[in-house]
Amino acid sequence: MLHTSQSLESVIEHLSSLPTIGRKTAQRIALYLLKQPREEVVAMARALVDMKDKTAYCTICQNITEQDPCAICQSPKRERNVICVVGEPSDVLAVEKTNDYHGLYHVLGGVIHPLDGVGPDDLKIKELLARIGNGDQEVILALNPNVEGEMTTLYLAKLLKPLGVKVTRIARGVPLGSALEFVDEATISRALEGRVEA
Amino acid sequence: MLHTSQSLESVIEHLSSLPTIGRKTAQRIALYLLKQPREEVVAMARALVDMKDKTAYCTICQNITEQDPCAICQSPKRERNVICVVGEPSDVLAVEKTNDYHGLYHVLGGVIHPLDGVGPDDLKIKELLARIGNGDQEVILALNPNVEGEMTTLYLAKLLKPLGVKVTRIARGVPLGSALEFVDEATISRALEGRVEA
Repeated sequence: MLHTSQSLESVIEHLSSLPTIGRKTAQRIALYLLKQPREEVVAMARALVDMKDKTAYCTICQNITEQDPCAICQSPKRERNVICVVGEPSDVLAVEKTNDYHGLYHVLGGVIHPLDGVGPDDLKIKELLARIGNGDQEVILALNPNVEGEMTTLYLAKLLKPLGVKVTRIARGVPLGSALEFVDEATISRALEGRVEA
Repeated sequence: MLHTSQSLESVIEHLSSLPTIGRKTAQRIALYLLKQPREEVVAMARALVDMKDKTAYCTICQNITEQDPCAICQSPKRERNVICVVGEPSDVLAVEKTNDYHGLYHVLGGVIHPLDGVGPDDLKIKELLARIGNGDQEVILALNPNVEGEMTTLYLAKLLKPLGVKVTRIARGVPLGSALEFVDEATISRALEGRVEA
Protein backbone atom coordinates (compact mmCIF):
# COMPACT_ATOMS: atom_id res chain seq x y z
CA MET A 1 0.00 0.00 0.00
CA LEU A 2 1.53 3.27 -1.10
CA HIS A 3 -1.00 5.59 0.47
CA THR A 4 -2.25 5.43 4.02
CA SER A 5 -5.73 4.68 2.73
CA GLN A 6 -6.75 1.52 0.87
CA SER A 7 -9.87 3.15 -0.55
CA LEU A 8 -7.85 6.03 -1.96
CA GLU A 9 -5.45 3.52 -3.47
CA SER A 10 -8.40 1.69 -5.03
CA VAL A 11 -9.71 4.87 -6.69
CA ILE A 12 -6.23 5.62 -8.05
CA GLU A 13 -6.05 2.13 -9.55
CA HIS A 14 -9.46 2.49 -11.15
CA LEU A 15 -8.63 5.87 -12.63
CA SER A 16 -5.24 4.68 -13.92
CA SER A 17 -7.04 2.05 -15.97
CA LEU A 18 -8.75 4.75 -18.04
CA PRO A 19 -7.32 5.87 -21.38
CA THR A 20 -4.97 8.90 -21.26
CA ILE A 21 -4.72 8.74 -17.44
CA GLY A 22 -1.46 7.64 -15.87
CA ARG A 23 -0.80 7.00 -12.20
CA LYS A 24 0.34 10.54 -11.43
CA THR A 25 -2.78 12.06 -12.98
CA ALA A 26 -4.97 9.46 -11.30
CA GLN A 27 -3.47 10.41 -7.95
CA ARG A 28 -4.03 14.07 -8.62
CA ILE A 29 -7.67 13.49 -9.57
CA ALA A 30 -8.30 11.24 -6.56
CA LEU A 31 -6.88 13.81 -4.14
CA TYR A 32 -8.96 16.48 -5.89
CA LEU A 33 -12.10 14.39 -5.42
CA LEU A 34 -11.25 13.89 -1.74
CA LYS A 35 -11.49 17.64 -1.31
CA GLN A 36 -14.87 17.89 -3.06
CA PRO A 37 -18.19 17.73 -1.20
CA ARG A 38 -19.62 14.23 -0.80
CA GLU A 39 -22.71 15.03 -2.94
CA GLU A 40 -20.44 15.98 -5.83
CA VAL A 41 -18.65 12.63 -5.76
CA VAL A 42 -21.89 10.70 -5.31
CA ALA A 43 -23.38 12.56 -8.29
CA MET A 44 -20.41 11.58 -10.43
CA ALA A 45 -20.59 7.95 -9.31
CA ARG A 46 -24.31 7.90 -10.04
CA ALA A 47 -23.80 9.47 -13.48
CA LEU A 48 -21.37 6.68 -14.39
CA VAL A 49 -23.77 3.88 -13.47
CA ASP A 50 -26.72 5.79 -14.95
CA MET A 51 -24.97 6.09 -18.28
CA LYS A 52 -24.28 2.37 -18.26
CA ASP A 53 -27.87 1.53 -17.37
CA LYS A 54 -29.72 3.97 -19.61
CA THR A 55 -27.76 3.76 -22.82
CA ALA A 56 -28.01 1.08 -25.44
CA TYR A 57 -27.19 0.81 -29.12
CA CYS A 58 -29.83 1.98 -31.59
CA THR A 59 -31.11 -1.13 -33.36
CA ILE A 60 -31.05 0.75 -36.68
CA CYS A 61 -27.87 2.85 -36.78
CA GLN A 62 -25.95 1.23 -33.84
CA ASN A 63 -25.18 4.60 -32.31
CA ILE A 64 -25.39 5.11 -28.54
CA THR A 65 -28.90 6.11 -27.52
CA GLU A 66 -31.36 6.16 -24.65
CA GLN A 67 -34.39 5.62 -26.85
CA ASP A 68 -34.68 3.03 -29.61
CA PRO A 69 -34.60 3.96 -32.47
CA CYS A 70 -32.37 6.92 -31.67
CA ALA A 71 -33.33 10.57 -32.13
CA ILE A 72 -31.57 10.83 -35.50
CA CYS A 73 -33.14 7.66 -36.93
CA GLN A 74 -36.57 8.86 -35.73
CA SER A 75 -36.24 12.45 -36.91
CA PRO A 76 -38.58 13.39 -39.79
CA LYS A 77 -36.16 16.17 -40.75
CA ARG A 78 -33.48 13.73 -41.84
CA GLU A 79 -32.97 12.58 -45.42
CA ARG A 80 -33.77 8.91 -45.12
CA ASN A 81 -32.03 7.78 -48.31
CA VAL A 82 -28.51 8.84 -47.27
CA ILE A 83 -26.52 6.83 -44.76
CA CYS A 84 -23.17 8.03 -43.46
CA VAL A 85 -21.05 5.11 -42.24
CA VAL A 86 -18.64 5.91 -39.39
CA GLY A 87 -16.45 3.88 -37.06
CA GLU A 88 -17.38 5.12 -33.59
CA PRO A 89 -20.14 7.12 -31.87
CA SER A 90 -17.68 9.98 -31.39
CA ASP A 91 -17.43 10.21 -35.20
CA VAL A 92 -21.19 10.84 -35.40
CA LEU A 93 -20.65 13.78 -33.10
CA ALA A 94 -17.78 15.05 -35.26
CA VAL A 95 -19.95 15.00 -38.40
CA GLU A 96 -22.99 16.44 -36.62
CA LYS A 97 -20.96 19.41 -35.50
CA THR A 98 -20.53 20.52 -39.14
CA ASN A 99 -24.31 21.12 -39.39
CA ASP A 100 -23.83 20.22 -43.05
CA TYR A 101 -25.12 16.68 -43.01
CA HIS A 102 -28.81 15.89 -42.81
CA GLY A 103 -28.93 12.19 -43.59
CA LEU A 104 -28.78 9.16 -41.33
CA TYR A 105 -25.79 7.35 -39.80
CA HIS A 106 -24.47 3.87 -39.37
CA VAL A 107 -21.91 3.19 -36.64
CA LEU A 108 -19.73 0.18 -37.38
CA GLY A 109 -18.35 -0.05 -33.85
CA GLY A 110 -14.77 -0.01 -35.13
CA VAL A 111 -12.90 -0.69 -38.35
CA ILE A 112 -11.25 -3.74 -39.86
CA HIS A 113 -7.96 -4.12 -37.99
CA PRO A 114 -6.18 -7.45 -38.58
CA LEU A 115 -3.41 -6.70 -36.06
CA ASP A 116 -6.00 -6.17 -33.33
CA GLY A 117 -7.93 -9.19 -34.56
CA VAL A 118 -10.92 -7.14 -35.72
CA GLY A 119 -12.45 -8.65 -38.85
CA PRO A 120 -15.60 -7.74 -40.82
CA ASP A 121 -17.69 -10.07 -38.65
CA ASP A 122 -16.85 -8.02 -35.56
CA LEU A 123 -18.39 -4.90 -37.09
CA LYS A 124 -22.03 -3.98 -37.62
CA ILE A 125 -21.87 -4.68 -41.35
CA LYS A 126 -24.77 -7.13 -41.46
CA GLU A 127 -26.93 -4.44 -39.87
CA LEU A 128 -25.78 -1.98 -42.52
CA LEU A 129 -26.64 -4.35 -45.37
CA ALA A 130 -30.08 -4.85 -43.85
CA ARG A 131 -30.70 -1.12 -44.31
CA ILE A 132 -30.03 -1.18 -48.05
CA GLY A 133 -33.41 -1.11 -49.84
CA ASN A 134 -34.50 -0.97 -53.45
CA GLY A 135 -34.96 2.79 -53.77
CA ASP A 136 -32.55 5.54 -54.63
CA GLN A 137 -29.97 5.29 -51.84
CA GLU A 138 -26.53 6.70 -51.12
CA VAL A 139 -24.02 5.35 -48.63
CA ILE A 140 -21.27 7.79 -47.64
CA LEU A 141 -18.19 6.08 -46.22
CA ALA A 142 -16.70 8.40 -43.59
CA LEU A 143 -14.06 6.31 -41.87
CA ASN A 144 -10.81 7.55 -40.38
CA PRO A 145 -8.28 8.34 -43.13
CA ASN A 146 -5.69 5.84 -41.93
CA VAL A 147 -4.70 2.35 -43.05
CA GLU A 148 -7.48 0.54 -41.22
CA GLY A 149 -10.15 3.02 -42.27
CA GLU A 150 -8.95 2.79 -45.85
CA MET A 151 -9.12 -1.00 -45.74
CA THR A 152 -12.63 -0.87 -44.31
CA THR A 153 -13.72 1.67 -46.93
CA LEU A 154 -12.51 -0.55 -49.77
CA TYR A 155 -14.13 -3.62 -48.22
CA LEU A 156 -17.49 -1.89 -47.81
CA ALA A 157 -17.40 -0.33 -51.28
CA LYS A 158 -16.85 -3.75 -52.81
CA LEU A 159 -19.68 -5.16 -50.73
CA LEU A 160 -22.20 -2.38 -51.34
CA LYS A 161 -21.74 -1.52 -55.02
CA PRO A 162 -23.25 -4.77 -56.36
CA LEU A 163 -26.41 -3.96 -54.38
CA GLY A 164 -27.14 -1.07 -56.76
CA VAL A 165 -26.59 1.60 -54.12
CA LYS A 166 -24.58 4.74 -54.78
CA VAL A 167 -21.40 4.45 -52.72
CA THR A 168 -19.32 7.54 -52.03
CA ARG A 169 -16.48 8.34 -49.68
CA ILE A 170 -15.59 11.60 -48.01
CA ALA A 171 -12.90 13.48 -49.90
CA ARG A 172 -9.34 12.96 -48.89
CA GLY A 173 -9.28 16.58 -47.89
CA VAL A 174 -9.10 15.34 -44.34
CA PRO A 175 -5.45 15.18 -43.31
CA LEU A 176 -4.11 11.63 -43.53
CA GLY A 177 -3.06 9.93 -40.33
CA SER A 178 -5.45 11.93 -38.15
CA ALA A 179 -8.53 10.70 -36.33
CA LEU A 180 -11.97 11.98 -37.37
CA GLU A 181 -12.99 13.05 -33.90
CA PHE A 182 -10.10 15.49 -33.74
CA VAL A 183 -10.51 17.11 -37.16
CA ASP A 184 -12.00 20.61 -37.23
CA GLU A 185 -15.56 21.06 -38.54
CA ALA A 186 -14.57 23.09 -41.61
CA THR A 187 -12.32 20.30 -42.85
CA ILE A 188 -15.06 17.73 -42.35
CA SER A 189 -17.54 19.97 -44.18
CA ARG A 190 -15.16 20.23 -47.12
CA ALA A 191 -14.64 16.49 -47.14
CA LEU A 192 -18.39 15.84 -47.21
CA GLU A 193 -18.81 18.33 -50.04
CA GLY A 194 -16.02 16.84 -52.13
CA ARG A 195 -17.03 13.21 -51.81
CA VAL A 196 -16.31 11.09 -54.91
CA GLU A 197 -17.46 7.80 -56.37
CA ALA A 198 -15.79 4.94 -54.48
CA MET B 1 -27.41 18.15 -26.28
CA LEU B 2 -24.43 17.19 -28.37
CA HIS B 3 -24.69 13.44 -28.00
CA THR B 4 -27.79 11.37 -28.56
CA SER B 5 -27.73 10.39 -24.89
CA GLN B 6 -28.26 12.75 -21.98
CA SER B 7 -26.65 10.37 -19.50
CA LEU B 8 -23.53 10.13 -21.65
CA GLU B 9 -23.46 13.92 -21.83
CA SER B 10 -23.75 14.07 -18.05
CA VAL B 11 -20.74 11.79 -17.54
CA ILE B 12 -18.70 13.87 -19.99
CA GLU B 13 -19.56 17.01 -18.03
CA HIS B 14 -18.59 15.41 -14.73
CA LEU B 15 -15.30 14.16 -16.11
CA SER B 16 -14.47 17.51 -17.72
CA SER B 17 -14.69 19.13 -14.29
CA LEU B 18 -11.70 17.09 -13.09
CA PRO B 19 -8.18 18.53 -13.16
CA THR B 20 -6.12 17.77 -16.31
CA ILE B 21 -9.21 16.47 -18.18
CA GLY B 22 -10.62 18.51 -21.06
CA ARG B 23 -13.81 17.83 -22.99
CA LYS B 24 -12.17 15.69 -25.68
CA THR B 25 -10.49 13.46 -23.13
CA ALA B 26 -13.70 13.29 -21.09
CA GLN B 27 -15.55 12.14 -24.19
CA ARG B 28 -12.94 9.53 -24.94
CA ILE B 29 -13.06 8.19 -21.38
CA ALA B 30 -16.88 8.14 -21.33
CA LEU B 31 -17.06 6.19 -24.59
CA TYR B 32 -14.39 3.84 -23.25
CA LEU B 33 -16.46 3.24 -20.12
CA LEU B 34 -19.54 2.58 -22.25
CA LYS B 35 -17.70 -0.34 -23.78
CA GLN B 36 -16.65 -1.79 -20.42
CA PRO B 37 -18.71 -4.41 -18.57
CA ARG B 38 -21.32 -2.98 -16.19
CA GLU B 39 -19.63 -4.50 -13.09
CA GLU B 40 -16.45 -2.63 -13.97
CA VAL B 41 -18.21 0.73 -14.06
CA VAL B 42 -20.21 -0.05 -10.92
CA ALA B 43 -16.97 -1.01 -9.13
CA MET B 44 -15.41 2.30 -10.10
CA ALA B 45 -18.47 4.27 -8.99
CA ARG B 46 -18.48 2.39 -5.69
CA ALA B 47 -14.75 3.01 -5.19
CA LEU B 48 -15.32 6.75 -5.54
CA VAL B 49 -18.07 6.89 -2.92
CA ASP B 50 -16.20 4.42 -0.70
CA MET B 51 -13.12 6.61 -0.69
CA LYS B 52 -15.24 9.59 0.26
CA ASP B 53 -16.98 7.69 3.07
CA LYS B 54 -14.03 5.84 4.53
CA THR B 55 -11.31 8.43 4.51
CA ALA B 56 -10.77 11.24 6.96
CA TYR B 57 -7.85 13.40 8.01
CA CYS B 58 -5.58 12.04 10.71
CA THR B 59 -6.14 14.21 13.79
CA ILE B 60 -2.39 14.28 14.43
CA CYS B 61 -0.61 14.71 11.08
CA GLN B 62 -3.62 15.78 8.92
CA ASN B 63 -2.77 13.21 6.26
CA ILE B 64 -5.54 11.20 4.60
CA THR B 65 -6.30 8.03 6.52
CA GLU B 66 -8.93 5.38 7.19
CA GLN B 67 -7.91 4.88 10.81
CA ASP B 68 -7.25 7.64 13.30
CA PRO B 69 -4.42 8.21 14.12
CA CYS B 70 -2.98 7.11 10.77
CA ALA B 71 -0.62 4.18 10.26
CA ILE B 72 2.48 6.39 10.23
CA CYS B 73 1.54 8.29 13.40
CA GLN B 74 0.79 4.96 15.13
CA SER B 75 3.88 3.10 13.93
CA PRO B 76 6.38 2.25 16.70
CA LYS B 77 9.14 2.11 14.06
CA ARG B 78 8.97 5.83 13.38
CA GLU B 79 11.24 8.39 15.00
CA ARG B 80 8.76 10.42 16.98
CA ASN B 81 10.91 13.52 17.47
CA VAL B 82 11.23 14.43 13.76
CA ILE B 83 8.32 15.99 11.87
CA CYS B 84 8.49 16.57 8.12
CA VAL B 85 6.10 19.37 7.09
CA VAL B 86 4.64 19.05 3.58
CA GLY B 87 1.90 20.79 1.61
CA GLU B 88 -0.29 17.96 0.35
CA PRO B 89 -0.87 14.24 0.98
CA SER B 90 0.81 13.48 -2.35
CA ASP B 91 4.01 15.00 -0.97
CA VAL B 92 4.00 12.47 1.87
CA LEU B 93 3.98 9.77 -0.78
CA ALA B 94 6.86 11.44 -2.62
CA VAL B 95 9.01 11.47 0.53
CA GLU B 96 7.95 7.95 1.57
CA LYS B 97 9.11 6.60 -1.79
CA THR B 98 12.70 7.52 -0.91
CA ASN B 99 12.66 4.94 1.91
CA ASP B 100 15.15 7.30 3.57
CA TYR B 101 12.87 9.09 5.98
CA HIS B 102 11.71 7.45 9.19
CA GLY B 103 10.16 10.32 11.10
CA LEU B 104 6.60 11.62 11.23
CA TYR B 105 4.76 14.00 8.90
CA HIS B 106 2.56 17.03 9.09
CA VAL B 107 0.35 17.89 6.11
CA LEU B 108 -0.52 21.60 5.92
CA GLY B 109 -3.28 21.10 3.35
CA GLY B 110 -1.76 23.71 1.03
CA VAL B 111 0.67 26.60 1.20
CA ILE B 112 0.29 30.32 1.81
CA HIS B 113 -0.98 31.75 -1.48
CA PRO B 114 -2.26 35.35 -1.25
CA LEU B 115 -3.42 35.44 -4.88
CA ASP B 116 -5.63 32.41 -4.27
CA GLY B 117 -6.73 33.87 -0.96
CA VAL B 118 -5.00 31.18 1.12
CA GLY B 119 -3.60 32.62 4.34
CA PRO B 120 -1.92 30.96 7.36
CA ASP B 121 -5.32 30.47 9.03
CA ASP B 122 -6.46 28.23 6.17
CA LEU B 123 -3.61 25.80 6.80
CA LYS B 124 -3.14 23.25 9.58
CA ILE B 125 -0.54 25.36 11.36
CA LYS B 126 -2.31 25.42 14.73
CA GLU B 127 -2.27 21.61 14.64
CA LEU B 128 1.46 21.67 13.89
CA LEU B 129 2.20 23.99 16.81
CA ALA B 130 0.21 21.68 19.08
CA ARG B 131 2.69 18.92 18.26
CA ILE B 132 5.72 20.87 19.40
CA GLY B 133 6.70 19.61 22.85
CA ASN B 134 9.51 20.33 25.28
CA GLY B 135 11.89 17.58 24.21
CA ASP B 136 14.58 17.42 21.57
CA GLN B 137 12.57 17.94 18.37
CA GLU B 138 13.32 18.67 14.71
CA VAL B 139 10.91 20.08 12.16
CA ILE B 140 11.95 19.59 8.53
CA LEU B 141 10.24 21.99 6.14
CA ALA B 142 9.73 20.19 2.82
CA LEU B 143 7.51 22.52 0.83
CA ASN B 144 7.55 22.96 -2.93
CA PRO B 145 10.52 25.09 -4.07
CA ASN B 146 8.41 27.86 -5.61
CA VAL B 147 7.34 31.35 -4.49
CA GLU B 148 4.43 30.14 -2.36
CA GLY B 149 6.40 27.29 -0.82
CA GLU B 150 9.23 29.69 -0.04
CA MET B 151 6.87 32.15 1.60
CA THR B 152 5.34 29.40 3.71
CA THR B 153 8.78 28.08 4.68
CA LEU B 154 9.88 31.50 5.90
CA TYR B 155 6.62 32.02 7.78
CA LEU B 156 6.86 28.66 9.55
CA ALA B 157 10.56 29.05 10.37
CA LYS B 158 9.83 32.39 12.04
CA LEU B 159 6.96 30.85 13.98
CA LEU B 160 8.75 27.68 15.07
CA LYS B 161 12.26 28.86 15.97
CA PRO B 162 11.20 30.80 19.11
CA LEU B 163 9.67 27.55 20.43
CA GLY B 164 13.16 26.11 20.85
CA VAL B 165 12.69 23.45 18.19
CA LYS B 166 15.35 22.69 15.57
CA VAL B 167 13.99 23.92 12.23
CA THR B 168 15.56 22.70 8.97
CA ARG B 169 14.56 22.83 5.33
CA ILE B 170 15.32 20.40 2.50
CA ALA B 171 18.35 21.36 0.41
CA ARG B 172 17.88 23.28 -2.83
CA GLY B 173 20.30 22.36 -5.59
CA VAL B 174 20.72 20.63 -8.90
CA PRO B 175 18.43 17.61 -9.25
CA LEU B 176 20.09 14.22 -9.70
CA GLY B 177 20.27 12.96 -13.26
CA SER B 178 19.99 16.45 -14.72
CA ALA B 179 22.51 18.18 -16.96
CA LEU B 180 24.01 21.43 -15.69
CA GLU B 181 23.45 23.20 -19.03
CA PHE B 182 19.70 22.66 -18.74
CA VAL B 183 19.34 23.70 -15.11
CA ASP B 184 18.03 27.24 -14.56
CA GLU B 185 20.27 29.95 -13.13
CA ALA B 186 18.36 30.35 -9.90
CA THR B 187 18.81 26.66 -9.07
CA ILE B 188 22.54 26.77 -9.85
CA SER B 189 22.91 29.93 -7.73
CA ARG B 190 21.23 28.13 -4.85
CA ALA B 191 23.37 25.03 -5.39
CA LEU B 192 26.56 27.11 -5.27
CA GLU B 193 25.38 28.90 -2.18
CA GLY B 194 24.57 25.64 -0.42
CA ARG B 195 27.78 23.87 -1.43
CA VAL B 196 29.14 21.34 1.03
CA GLU B 197 32.55 19.79 1.65
CA ALA B 198 33.26 17.22 -1.09
